[in-house]
Amino acid sequence: MIKKFTSALNLKSGHVDLSHGGGGRAMTQLIDELFIKHFDNDLLRQHNDQALFSVPAGRLAISTDGHVISPLFFPGGDIGSLAVHGTLNDVAMSGARPLYLAAGFILEEGLPLADLERIVISMAAASKAAGTPIVTGDTKVVERGKGDGVFITTTGVGIVPEGVNISGNRASPGCAILISGSIGDHGVAIMAGRENLQFETSIVSDSAALHGLVADLVAVAPAAIRCLRDPTRGGLATTLNELAKQSGVGMAIAEDRIPVKAQVKAACEILGLDPLYVANEGKLVCVCEASAAETLLAVMQQHPLGRDAAIIGEVIDDPHGFVQMATTFGGRRIVDWPVGEQLPRIC
Amino acid sequence: MIKKFTSALNLKSGHVDLSHGGGGRAMTQLIDELFIKHFDNDLLRQHNDQALFSVPAGRLAISTDGHVISPLFFPGGDIGSLAVHGTLNDVAMSGARPLYLAAGFILEEGLPLADLERIVISMAAASKAAGTPIVTGDTKVVERGKGDGVFITTTGVGIVPEGVNISGNRASPGCAILISGSIGDHGVAIMAGRENLQFETSIVSDSAALHGLVADLVAVAPAAIRCLRDPTRGGLATTLNELAKQSGVGMAIAEDRIPVKAQVKAACEILGLDPLYVANEGKLVCVCEASAAETLLAVMQQHPLGRDAAIIGEVIDDPHGFVQMATTFGGRRIVDWPVGEQLPRIC
Repeated sequence: MIKKFTSALNLKSGHVDLSHGGGGRAMTQLIDELFIKHFDNDLLRQHNDQALFSVPAGRLAISTDGHVISPLFFPGGDIGSLAVHGTLNDVAMSGARPLYLAAGFILEEGLPLADLERIVISMAAASKAAGTPIVTGDTKVVERGKGDGVFITTTGVGIVPEGVNISGNRASPGCAILISGSIGDHGVAIMAGRENLQFETSIVSDSAALHGLVADLVAVAPAAIRCLRDPTRGGLATTLNELAKQSGVGMAIAEDRIPVKAQVKAACEILGLDPLYVANEGKLVCVCEASAAETLLAVMQQHPLGRDAAIIGEVIDDPHGFVQMATTFGGRRIVDWPVGEQLPRIC
Repeated sequence: MIKKFTSALNLKSGHVDLSHGGGGRAMTQLIDELFIKHFDNDLLRQHNDQALFSVPAGRLAISTDGHVISPLFFPGGDIGSLAVHGTLNDVAMSGARPLYLAAGFILEEGLPLADLERIVISMAAASKAAGTPIVTGDTKVVERGKGDGVFITTTGVGIVPEGVNISGNRASPGCAILISGSIGDHGVAIMAGRENLQFETSIVSDSAALHGLVADLVAVAPAAIRCLRDPTRGGLATTLNELAKQSGVGMAIAEDRIPVKAQVKAACEILGLDPLYVANEGKLVCVCEASAAETLLAVMQQHPLGRDAAIIGEVIDDPHGFVQMATTFGGRRIVDWPVGEQLPRIC
C-alpha cells in the first residue's frame, strides 16, 4: 500500500466536508484512518467495493435498517451501537446466526470528525462484541442542512439453522406470547435526551444484540418457536398487531404481566405516553407453542438480556385480528395500531 | 390479511409525513400500497423484518451503497433506478451473479407521494429487468430540513462462480486495461440537470446494470480477469488510482484511446472539468492478462452495454503507484487522485 496522505485526519477539531464523500483522496483517508482502523478486519482492508465470504449450503437471512435517531448520543448508547444492534436483531429474529454487517453512512457537511470517530468506535465495539464484523461499506456526504449529522443504514446477513421455521405468519390460537424483559426503556431514554423534553431519569436505553438470547432459545426448542420480533418503533402494541395481522389471529394479553420499570411508568405518565407504544431496542416478543412456553421462559430468564422475561398472554382465534388486553383495573380493552410513533426518530 | 386502512394512500397530492416512518398504521399502508405493490415478490409480501433465501455452498459477495443524488430525477434515470444499478454493479464487479437486493429509504417529511411513487416504480422496473428482486427493506422519515427528499441505501448479495478471483489488488505489470465504453456521460447528464448549471445537451446518464456484461466476460476468460471496477464517483482517474494503489503497480494509459463522446467533451470544456474525473454509472474498468485482452474486448463490443469498449493502456511496474497518460499532444502527464468529486452528490 502506498501512503498518499500528507497529514493525518484532524480528529480533534476537524469537520466532515463534501470532499469526504467525493470518492477521491479525502474519502480514502477517512476510510483508512477512521473506518478501517476501527472496524479492522481483513475483508474491509482489501479496499474492494464488495466483500466476499464463504457459506455452507442452506438458508440465509438478510435484513436492512436505516438509523436516523436523534440525538446521536443518548443514555445507554449512540447511533453507532444502535445501528449494529438494530440490524443484528432483525436478522436474529428469523432464528438466524448473524455473520456479517454492511454499513452505509450518510454524513452531513460540518459534522465534527470527533463525533464521527466516537460513533465509529462505538459501532466497532458493538460489532466486535457481537462477533459480526462490518465487512463492507459506503460513505456519502450531503450539504449542510440536507441531512442531520449522520444517518447509518446497516444490512446484516446470517445463517438460519436447519429445523427452524420462524415467521410472523405462524402464530396460531393456543400459542403463548412471551416478552424477554421490561418495555419502554429505549424510548424513555431517548425522550429524556431530547433538548426540549428534559426530565430527571436514570433510565438508559436497552439497546443490545439479542442473537445470543435467540441462539439459546433455538437450541432448546427450535420447532416450537413460531414468531420472534423485536418491538422497536411503535413498541409492543405495534409488534403484537403486526403479528396478529400477519397470522390472521387475535392476541389476548394481561397488563399486569407486562414488565415495565417504575421509572419508565412514571416518565410515561408525565409525558402522557403509553409504555405499550414506546420503542425498545433490546427486547423480543416470542410466540411459541404453549407446551414449550415455560421452558423458553426459563431459558430467557437465565440469559442476562432476559432476566425479567414473562409470559404475557396467548394467541386466540379472532377473525378481526384484534389485540385485547385485560387491564389492571379488571376491564378489557383493545390495544389498537398506532397511526405513527409517539415521537419521531426514535431509532 | 386483514384490511385496516380506511382510505387509500393519496398518491396524487399527498405528502410524506412523520407518521409514515413511525412503525404504525401509516407506515404499514405506505409499505403495502407502494413498496410491496410495485416491488411485488413473495419474500417482501411476508411482511417480516428480514428475508430468507437458500444458497448453495460457495462464495457470496455483499455490497452496500447509499444514494443521495441531486436532482432526484435526471436525464437517463432517477435515484430509484440508480440505487438498483449502483449496488448491483458493485456486487457484479467481484464477478458475482447478483441474487437479491435490500433497500433502506430515508424520506424527508413533505416529499410528494407522487415523487416517491415514481421513484419506486422506476426502482421496481430496474430490479425486475435485472432479475434481482428487492426482498427486504426499511423506511424512516426525518423532519423537513433534516434530509433532502429521499436517500436510498441498497445492499446486494450475489454468488461468485468457482474459478473467479477478481480483486483490486490483482493487477500486475503487463496486464491490459480495458474500459467498456465512453466516459463522463453520467456526470455531465447530472450537471445539466442542476438548476444552477443549465446548458443544452442531449447527453443522458449511462446508468445501467452491468452484471450481464460481467457474466459474459467471466464465461469467456474467468481466470484471466484480475480486476473489475465501475468508475463512479471520481471517474476513471480515481478508479485507476485506486487499483494502482491496491495492487502496488503503475498504470500507463493513452488519452486518444479513451472513448469520450463529443458532447461530453464539449460540456466538460464549458464547465472546466476533466472527463477523466467525471462519474459514470454504466461502465466498467477491466484489468486482465494481456493474452486475453482482445478476446475480452470482443465480448464487450458484442454486448449492448460495451459497444464502445476499448483497450486504453497497460499495467506497469512503478513503486510510486502513479497513473500516467500519453496525451493527444504527444506528451505525458500524471493522472493524480482528485481530493474530492468535482461536483457533490453525483450518485
